[in-house]
Amino acid sequence: MDRARLEAFSDGVFAVAITLLALNLTVAGPGHGALSRQLDTHWPAFAAYVISFFTIGIIWVNHHILVRVITVVNRTLLFLNLVLLLFVVLIPFGTGIAAEYLTARTVNGDSVWDPRIAMALYGAVFLGMSIGFGSMFEWTLHGERVRQPVPVEKRWAARIRFVGGAGVYLIAIVVAFVSPVASFVIIALTAVYYIAQRTPGTAGTGDAEPPDGTPSP
Amino acid sequence: MDRARLEAFSDGVFAVAITLLALNLTVAGPGHGALSRQLDTHWPAFAAYVISFFTIGIIWVNHHILVRVITVVNRTLLFLNLVLLLFVVLIPFGTGIAAEYLTARTVNGDSVWDPRIAMALYGAVFLGMSIGFGSMFEWTLHGERVRQPVPVEKRWAARIRFVGGAGVYLIAIVVAFVSPVASFVIIALTAVYYIAQRTPGTAGTGDAEPPDGTPSP
Amino acid sequence: MDRARLEAFSDGVFAVAITLLALNLTVAGPGHGALSRQLDTHWPAFAAYVISFFTIGIIWVNHHILVRVITVVNRTLLFLNLVLLLFVVLIPFGTGIAAEYLTARTVNGDSVWDPRIAMALYGAVFLGMSIGFGSMFEWTLHGERVRQPVPVEKRWAARIRFVGGAGVYLIAIVVAFVSPVASFVIIALTAVYYIAQRTPGTAGTGDAEPPDGTPSP
Amino acid sequence: MDRARLEAFSDGVFAVAITLLALNLTVAGPGHGALSRQLDTHWPAFAAYVISFFTIGIIWVNHHILVRVITVVNRTLLFLNLVLLLFVVLIPFGTGIAAEYLTARTVNGDSVWDPRIAMALYGAVFLGMSIGFGSMFEWTLHGERVRQPVPVEKRWAARIRFVGGAGVYLIAIVVAFVSPVASFVIIALTAVYYIAQRTPGTAGTGDAEPPDGTPSP
Repeated sequence: MDRARLEAFSDGVFAVAITLLALNLTVAGPGHGALSRQLDTHWPAFAAYVISFFTIGIIWVNHHILVRVITVVNRTLLFLNLVLLLFVVLIPFGTGIAAEYLTARTVNGDSVWDPRIAMALYGAVFLGMSIGFGSMFEWTLHGERVRQPVPVEKRWAARIRFVGGAGVYLIAIVVAFVSPVASFVIIALTAVYYIAQRTPGTAGTGDAEPPDGTPSP
Repeated sequence: MDRARLEAFSDGVFAVAITLLALNLTVAGPGHGALSRQLDTHWPAFAAYVISFFTIGIIWVNHHILVRVITVVNRTLLFLNLVLLLFVVLIPFGTGIAAEYLTARTVNGDSVWDPRIAMALYGAVFLGMSIGFGSMFEWTLHGERVRQPVPVEKRWAARIRFVGGAGVYLIAIVVAFVSPVASFVIIALTAVYYIAQRTPGTAGTGDAEPPDGTPSP
Repeated sequence: MDRARLEAFSDGVFAVAITLLALNLTVAGPGHGALSRQLDTHWPAFAAYVISFFTIGIIWVNHHILVRVITVVNRTLLFLNLVLLLFVVLIPFGTGIAAEYLTARTVNGDSVWDPRIAMALYGAVFLGMSIGFGSMFEWTLHGERVRQPVPVEKRWAARIRFVGGAGVYLIAIVVAFVSPVASFVIIALTAVYYIAQRTPGTAGTGDAEPPDGTPSP
Repeated sequence: MDRARLEAFSDGVFAVAITLLALNLTVAGPGHGALSRQLDTHWPAFAAYVISFFTIGIIWVNHHILVRVITVVNRTLLFLNLVLLLFVVLIPFGTGIAAEYLTARTVNGDSVWDPRIAMALYGAVFLGMSIGFGSMFEWTLHGERVRQPVPVEKRWAARIRFVGGAGVYLIAIVVAFVSPVASFVIIALTAVYYIAQRTPGTAGTGDAEPPDGTPSP
């Protein structure tokens, strides 16, 4: 019962956050030049929408897989879940900034660092989400908190894999200061990787591995 | 259990997307001319609101009918469901653009193609939604994934019917480049058709056919 | 099961619509005059927020009471439910217009009819909601659709009571063309009436009468 | 069943409200000066986001703990729950105003009282939420409404503790008129206190005390 409501609240937040992503998609409307041109210059917004949409989708799937084996819901878990959601809710904001600045020309007192900072911020939101999720995973390893805990000998492999997941976002942040576009591509490829890699191997049931830095249970 | 959370998340996204439609309804407020006139010139926004509202409502009903017989939730299904939701979330954006440009006069560097592109975009969002839903339906046909699978001899009829559903939106996209208003009417009639056609015949239980391009199970 | 998902989707829409009401509460921010003065001139927005919030809350309670005894979910019910939700989703829009125009001065080409039209629109949204809910109630009276149907001899009393509920909103619309403020007060008193009247008598269980125009089952 | 839907609706409102907090996070975009500078001057928005996020999270946890032992859902409870949610929905608005005015310079007819009023408003929203929740708790003490009611001898301690919780927000309101920043810090520390205090002691199950002014059951 406890778990059900944790899921319901989290699902609500995931659902609202994923839907608010579309608020970043706007055109100035009639009287502001050809629509095709407006859509054209907004391509980063559409690309960022798709990337963020699937990244939230992936973390939702992971959350689902992680939480359904939890047998104990205590305050620490609720707090870690809130930390995860804090970053999930920031994704539409980070997505909007990344999209606006990716191809922005430097005018009127803007800094040449702006696109780099914007993209680093985008990566940082995903890094925070990744760390929040990793903390929830770590929590499941201790005590009698899940139905089928990860065996002790597999835990370090699992943790290393998690560090790998967060590490990619860390690399994206560093790369952002050199090339915002390259950073954007890294974040996009991360989403593609997680979707592509596991989907084929899991034709049977939902017993697949959580994609985003979560170890195989 | 798996299915329950898939439904909960999807319901959340459908509910938020359908409610965000109303954000496209705005008037400039006091000091911008008579309210009756403002409402008058915004009639496409109100028409598009009703059309999009019922189209999301129809796809929600279809989703509900399709998912409730699913016995296996795997990553492929979750991915296809995300693709469907990706387009559902785009509906408020597509609706807003269609409403803004349908009756827009061509000023200040706008292109005469703008209303056509806007309406084609509106149709494209629905086409994407339709393809996403069709893919989920196709997925249910293979393996032992639903309680009562569609019999093999009825599958091609079902698929053709789906292609018909997506085909109407494809026609709407093509027509948009000739007459945006005609395209708008086609999309509206599609919603009316799906609501009107099935409602009378289903007085008893919920065992009706999914309306939007989904074959009769 | 069917009913559960109808409730989940409707709850989602009610929850999002009730929360979006707060988006109408805005101040222009620093640099636009004293905050106390800004809040002062926005009093209709705050009053309208409270009225709309409780009206949505009341209709949610009614919806909850009506739906929980339903045993059959068919497409007609789903359609009527969509009609109800169509108007629920319009409430934040109607609330925003009512709040903006209630005390608006007539400048810059505005019409003296603007506050009247705005308030009539506000009443019309509630009237639509009321009719949508009444249609759902009427649907429950026919066939074997609810666990404990309203006895035949009580149905006309119930219907008259419903007509009474919708009638108050109709009166509010008519009054709006004479005095927008009086119309606003009527709509506010309707919410107060429904909350105040039934709350005391229902200390025991949830078996009270639905407040908004719904007859006593 | 009744309780389930009360939870579903409330969870929806909590989830939407907590996600709408992020709408207060905006930058003016390219062409408005260096992004780093824009983010810098918006630090109150980010601080307020975190504070409000965790405060809503805490009240959600409390709501969850309080409601799960309720055995009777009547109209009084539904009304009190609506009052609580009325203030929860106001939190994004209060957060936005507090963030905008905290460090605002006084220009163009602004009053020096503006930051104080803004912060008092922020505290008042939390006070209202606290009173709403306290009323729900008080309701659970009377009649046979919960599975394990708080023993009579512990009730006054519980109530005093609740008054303490609301009292802190009252102090924050008063302090706001002297120093808005000090008021902001008090509200932040309240959230930190509730998270920090209980988390360590509740490693086992979810049987911890509700943090926000709720007595130990």
